[in-house]
Parts: sequence; structure tokens; C-alpha cells
Amino acid sequence: MTIVPRVIIVGGGFGGIAAARSLAGTNADVLLIDRRNHHLFQPLLYQVATAALAPAEIAQPIRHMLRNFKNVRVHWDEVTAIDRTKRTVETSSGRSLPFDYLIVATGATHSYFGRDDWAKAAPGLKSIEDAYELRHRILGAFERAEMEAHGPRRDALLEFIIVGAGPTGVEMAGAIAELARHSLVRDFRSVSSHCAKIKLVEAGPRILASFDAKLSAKAQKSLEALGVEVLTSTRVTDIRVGSVLLNNEPIDTETVIWAAGVQASPAAKWLGCPADHTGRALVDVHLRLPDDDSIFVIGDTAALIPKGATQALPGLAPMAKQMGQHAAKVIKSRLHGQAMPDPFRYRNWGTMATIGRNKAIVDLGRFKFSGFLAWIAWSFTHVSLLYGFTNRLSVSSSWIWSYLTWQRGARVMLISVQHNMTDKEA
Amino acid sequence: MTIVPRVIIVGGGFGGIAAARSLAGTNADVLLIDRRNHHLFQPLLYQVATAALAPAEIAQPIRHMLRNFKNVRVHWDEVTAIDRTKRTVETSSGRSLPFDYLIVATGATHSYFGRDDWAKAAPGLKSIEDAYELRHRILGAFERAEMEAHGPRRDALLEFIIVGAGPTGVEMAGAIAELARHSLVRDFRSVSSHCAKIKLVEAGPRILASFDAKLSAKAQKSLEALGVEVLTSTRVTDIRVGSVLLNNEPIDTETVIWAAGVQASPAAKWLGCPADHTGRALVDVHLRLPDDDSIFVIGDTAALIPKGATQALPGLAPMAKQMGQHAAKVIKSRLHGQAMPDPFRYRNWGTMATIGRNKAIVDLGRFKFSGFLAWIAWSFTHVSLLYGFTNRLSVSSSWIWSYLTWQRGARVMLISVQHNMTDKEA
Repeated sequence: MTIVPRVIIVGGGFGGIAAARSLAGTNADVLLIDRRNHHLFQPLLYQVATAALAPAEIAQPIRHMLRNFKNVRVHWDEVTAIDRTKRTVETSSGRSLPFDYLIVATGATHSYFGRDDWAKAAPGLKSIEDAYELRHRILGAFERAEMEAHGPRRDALLEFIIVGAGPTGVEMAGAIAELARHSLVRDFRSVSSHCAKIKLVEAGPRILASFDAKLSAKAQKSLEALGVEVLTSTRVTDIRVGSVLLNNEPIDTETVIWAAGVQASPAAKWLGCPADHTGRALVDVHLRLPDDDSIFVIGDTAALIPKGATQALPGLAPMAKQMGQHAAKVIKSRLHGQAMPDPFRYRNWGTMATIGRNKAIVDLGRFKFSGFLAWIAWSFTHVSLLYGFTNRLSVSSSWIWSYLTWQRGARVMLISVQHNMTDKEA
Repeated sequence: MTIVPRVIIVGGGFGGIAAARSLAGTNADVLLIDRRNHHLFQPLLYQVATAALAPAEIAQPIRHMLRNFKNVRVHWDEVTAIDRTKRTVETSSGRSLPFDYLIVATGATHSYFGRDDWAKAAPGLKSIEDAYELRHRILGAFERAEMEAHGPRRDALLEFIIVGAGPTGVEMAGAIAELARHSLVRDFRSVSSHCAKIKLVEAGPRILASFDAKLSAKAQKSLEALGVEVLTSTRVTDIRVGSVLLNNEPIDTETVIWAAGVQASPAAKWLGCPADHTGRALVDVHLRLPDDDSIFVIGDTAALIPKGATQALPGLAPMAKQMGQHAAKVIKSRLHGQAMPDPFRYRNWGTMATIGRNKAIVDLGRFKFSGFLAWIAWSFTHVSLLYGFTNRLSVSSSWIWSYLTWQRGARVMLISVQHNMTDKEA
């Protein structure tokens, strides 16, 4: 009897899926565990939150994506602990699953920098539920403003504050501006949606700090042309229900969106291994724990500091994907008794961000550009990265339809009306 | 100064929307209030529950549907009471809205025949949240079965019981059978989805009792060909978490779907008016309260017993629509000082139900037919009744794609894994 090596992958994001695909066809028994049934294309999640896309257009059942790989199984279960001595993964369904190799790819979550009490008033955007919650708050603010007379109460309902000017914050701000100025405008009677105010708040000196300074200046100009007020060097000093303090100045608002900080999932805690200040597990050049060459940590939950660099690699989808492929390559070399591959090296094909329709910035290293051409490049890249022909077709048609009609196809709110206490005070 | 008559419509279903449209262009100020932001095409809701369609394909923002009618406003608010003396509608946002004419079109909800404790174990299907909940339970049962070894635990997970064999129950049973036998089968490793058991339970002597006996026999045959076990003259005597008693015989199951009873919304209670045994307000031939000719009750929440009949009209979308139009006609005749229209008469264009792909039954009164042709008729009718070109296009393409590939496009579950207590006992 031959012994079948068991590989467990925790997490079905870009890293986990890439690892599973790379291990397909080997003699290993591969088990991918995720607490959700779907893989999510997070780069477009802000479009679900702003009612441009439906959830099913950017999510795919993990099981379906891996159906053709006969040595790969999928469990819909939640990992609660990892036992490094017994070499098992413990789950919330009460299972204890043994592994020979383990790949942890559990991603990141929001960080409120120690102010977790802000989470209720200022939700972030990581899952489809988050997107529905934000959609509910954004569309609901317009709905509630429609019932109000002119005055401070209505102004607060039409005040949208986005905290953090990374790609997600910039994209959200642009999308809300378009929603307010174009898509919704004809549907309301009392509210002219032009009176919506959108503020993008950034503690640092400029938006999109990971991009070239010229590109980030262009992005700021495009945002301002859409009517977004960009407040750099501005700190959020407190967030309460109904108001926000910016540099200690209070602003009344009903909608605050958190796009400022991320922290790693608790993988490092499960593994009892050293982590950086955002909770990411420190890994060696092959993405393994320094003291265990069968346990890999990849993607947003790993901190790999490249040789000569002072900072760990950023949390981006292509990086997670490449890390997943690398971990699989290392495992395959061990399974087949081959030489180890070269150390992991992140191949940066470029970064991009979009600012509403028609505008984007693209940074390919030597080659940087912005404007309409960048927006076309952004659109094609994102459609081509989606999983499956039907999603590509569906997202493309939704975009073309929105482009031509200025409409949003996905304005359904799940939750029925729930009035805040502030409504009744009015 | 001329006095503008105020019409309030409560509810944005088929009845409320039809009334609002019919009142467009008059000199009345029309206000439609709904606690959801969307109108829902309920006849296709079972396809959202069984992952064939996405919610946005059958739901439309009410505000958007009525955007061109300048004398119609929309409030996203929840009615909590009606004050007939003060002539106002009270809402959960604390508003008190005066009316000269009132149209109540608040629809129906599930009835558990006095056993409301069954609701948790056997949810019904009325809203998009309900559809997500059922999708979660149905797909989740397969997911959990995948992790189990052969045995009674897995059998219970693959046992699906649908209570009530009206159109919704029949359509759900057919859709689950196809999901199990075709759409999911390649995606699982341990579970062969062929072993799923689907039981359709009906207390009466035959399924689809509102149809001709021959058609209902044909529908039963088609269901059985799909692998559905049809249990007529079978009473559900109890429902608990993990099991159901059918004629006092226990059956272990994790998924029970309630499609048996409906009761009207609490409109009759708000109005303090006489109601039938399902809570529907008794109305006169013009759909008004007998003692108040400015208050109309329409659709599923009205009980109109036609002259010479013993039973009130059934709760169907076309009936609600026609009632909405009639109520508007009566109001218009009063606004313009014209003669009253003829009493309301329901024009029954026919009824239809579908049983999985390729099969349906159609009853046009004199002309009855079933099979593939009926299914084509069913499909075209439902697509043409949807609101808006984009939804028609989207549903048609989803159906054609599903037809050709046997796949389901909307298998996203919102909720992350939550294991029942029964999992851990196993």
C-alpha cells in the first residue's frame, strides 16, 4: 500500500485556489477548506457595494472551480485551530483533519488601529455581506433623505465619508459620486442628488501612496472633477453614530466607510509563530515557517521581507496567486524527490486603480499612464482576471449597459427598512 | 389655491405598482410606501432559492419603476398603523402622513396554521431574504453531506421535504430534483447527488388542486420522472429540528421547506374591519371597505367573493394587478366627477405551473395543455411579465445558458458556515 500524502489548504482566495490548481494531478490528496462556499474577486467588490454589479457576477462556488481536479476535495467548514504537534487542523464542525503539508491562506480583515468600537459606525469591505451592508447604507441614506425637508438632518444623510485613500477608498469615492450625480438623479423627487457631499479622508500627505506621485496627483484631480472632496493630511480622531471628528472637527454624517487599515487573519496565532505588527506570519524564502518546512503561509496573511528590502510585500491578488503557485511547487518537488525551486520572487506586472468611468491610473514600472486609455486597460485586465467565461460575459455586459445608460443594475437592498434612532429625533 | 387630493398606496407589489401607474398623470399627489426598496417578481422567486437566478434579475427598485410619473412619490418606510379618524398613515420613521384616498396592498405572508414554532425549522418563500435562506439550507445540506461517511446522518442531510403541493411547492420540488441530479453532480467527490431524496407532501388528495384533475395527474407524473416522491393525503403532524412527522411517522431530515399556507398581512387589523379566516379584509364590488368608500384593499390582502361564488378570489399576481387598476379607476372617476366604473371583475387569462425543465401545465379555461409546448409557453409568459428590458434579457440568457449547460449561475451563499448542533452530535 502506498501512502498518499495529504495536503490541506485553508482558504479559497487567490492564494488557496492557485495552490490547489497547481497541485492538481499530483499523487497528493488535496483538501481545501473554506468557511464560505465561494471564491470572491475582491478587486471588484466595491462595485457590488455601489450597486453596479450583482454578487454572483464576481463570486464562484469554490467546489465548481475545482471540479475537474479529481485529487482535490473541498470542505465547507471553518478552521478553529491548528495542532502542530498532532499535525491536524481542527474545525467548527468538530472534525480533526490530519495533514502532511499545510498551506494557510486565510487573508486579511479590517483593522481599526485599536478602535474596534468604530466598526459599527464605519463598516469596511471584505465580503459579500459587507458589500450588501454598504449598499444598504449608501442607497438607504438617499432614501431617507428623500423623506426629509431641507436642513441639517438631510445634509447629514447626504454626507458620505470614506476613510483611507488606497485603491479601495478611491474607487468607492468615485463610484458613490457617480451614483449620486448620475445614476440616481432622475429617481428622486425631493432630493436633488447633486447635493450629496463625498469626502475622501487620508491621514497621509497624498492619495494612493503606493503609486507614483504624478499618477496620484492625476487621480486626485479626476476625483475632484467628479465632485469628491479630497482631504489629505487629515486624521479621523473619532467616529460615533451620526458624526465623525476630522482633526477634532465634528462633521454630521450617516455614512462612514472604512477603507483605512487591514490586519492579517489569526493564522499566526493558530500556528503560534512570530508575526509582524499587522499580525502576518513571518515566513522564509519558500513561504514556510522558519521552524517547520511543511507549513506554508501565503498571501495577505504572510509577511515576506524581500532581500535588501525593509518592508514586507503588499497584500495584492497577483502576489497571493504567485505565492500559492510557489508553495505548490515546493511541495511537488518534495513529493517527487526533486531539487527545490529558486526562492520565491514576486513578479510585479504593474498596479492600477480606477476613478469612476473613463478614468484610471496604471503603473507598469517604467511605463505609467492615466486617463481614458488607462481606464480601458483597467477594464480589460479586470474582466480577463475574472473566473470563467460566463462571469466575464456578464460583467462586460453590465459595464457596457451601465456605460451607455448611466444606470446601475443591482440596486436591490436585502434588508427591509430599519430606521436609526436619529430618524425619530429629527 | 386648488386642493391637491392625496392618495397613499401601501405596498409596492403587483397591486400597488399597478395602482400607482394608473394614477400617473392625474392631478392627485400619489405616495407609494414600501418597507423594501424593490418590487419583487414573486412567481420566479423559487429560482433564486434554487440558485438558477440572482436576486437582481427579478427585483427592481420601486423608485426606478415609477421615475417617469412626476405626480408619484416613493417612500422607503414601514407602515405601523392607520388612523381612520384622523385619515393618516403612521410609519416606523415616526411620520404621520395624511390621505384623502388610501389603497392598502400589503400582500400575504406564510401561515403555519397556528404552529408558528415550525417556522424556524421549515422556512417559507416570500422575500429575497427567504430565498437566500432556502438557498443556504439546500446547498448547505449538500456541502455538509460531502463531509459525512455513509450512514443515517448523511441520509438525513440528503432528505428534502417540501410541504404543500401548490405551484410553489411543485416548482421547488422540481428545481431541487434537477439541482441534485444534474447541476451539482460533477462538483462533489464523496456524495453522489443522485442519492438525494425529495419528498413533496400534500394533505389533500392531489397536487395542484386549483388545476384540472388531468393536468395535475400529468404534473405528478413529470415530478415522479424527475425522482420526486409525491405523497398526497399525507399530513405533517410535527416539525422539529432534524426531523418531521408525516402522518405521525418520523423522517430524519435537515431541510424542510414550507409552501403550504398563506395568511394576509395585518391590514384588516390596522383598519379594524371585518376579515375572512385567513385575515383578508372583506371588500365591496369596488374593493372598498363596506363602511368607507375612500379606503381600498387589493390583492392578497383583500377577500372579494364574486357574485354567486362561495369562495373569495385566489391570490394571484394578475388579480392583484387588475385590482390595482380598478381601485385607481374608481379614484379617477371621483377626482374627475365622472360615473363610477362597472364593479370589479377578475379576468382570468389562465394559470400555469412548471415542473423542472421541459415540462409545464397550462390551463387557459377551455384550452388545456402540458409538456414541452406548455413549458415554452410558461417561459415566454414569465419573461414577458418581468419588468424592464434588461431583466428580460438577463433572465432569458440565464435560462438559455442553464438549459444548455445544466449549470446554475447563482450558487453564492451569503452566510458563512454555521454548523447545526446535529453536526457535532454525529
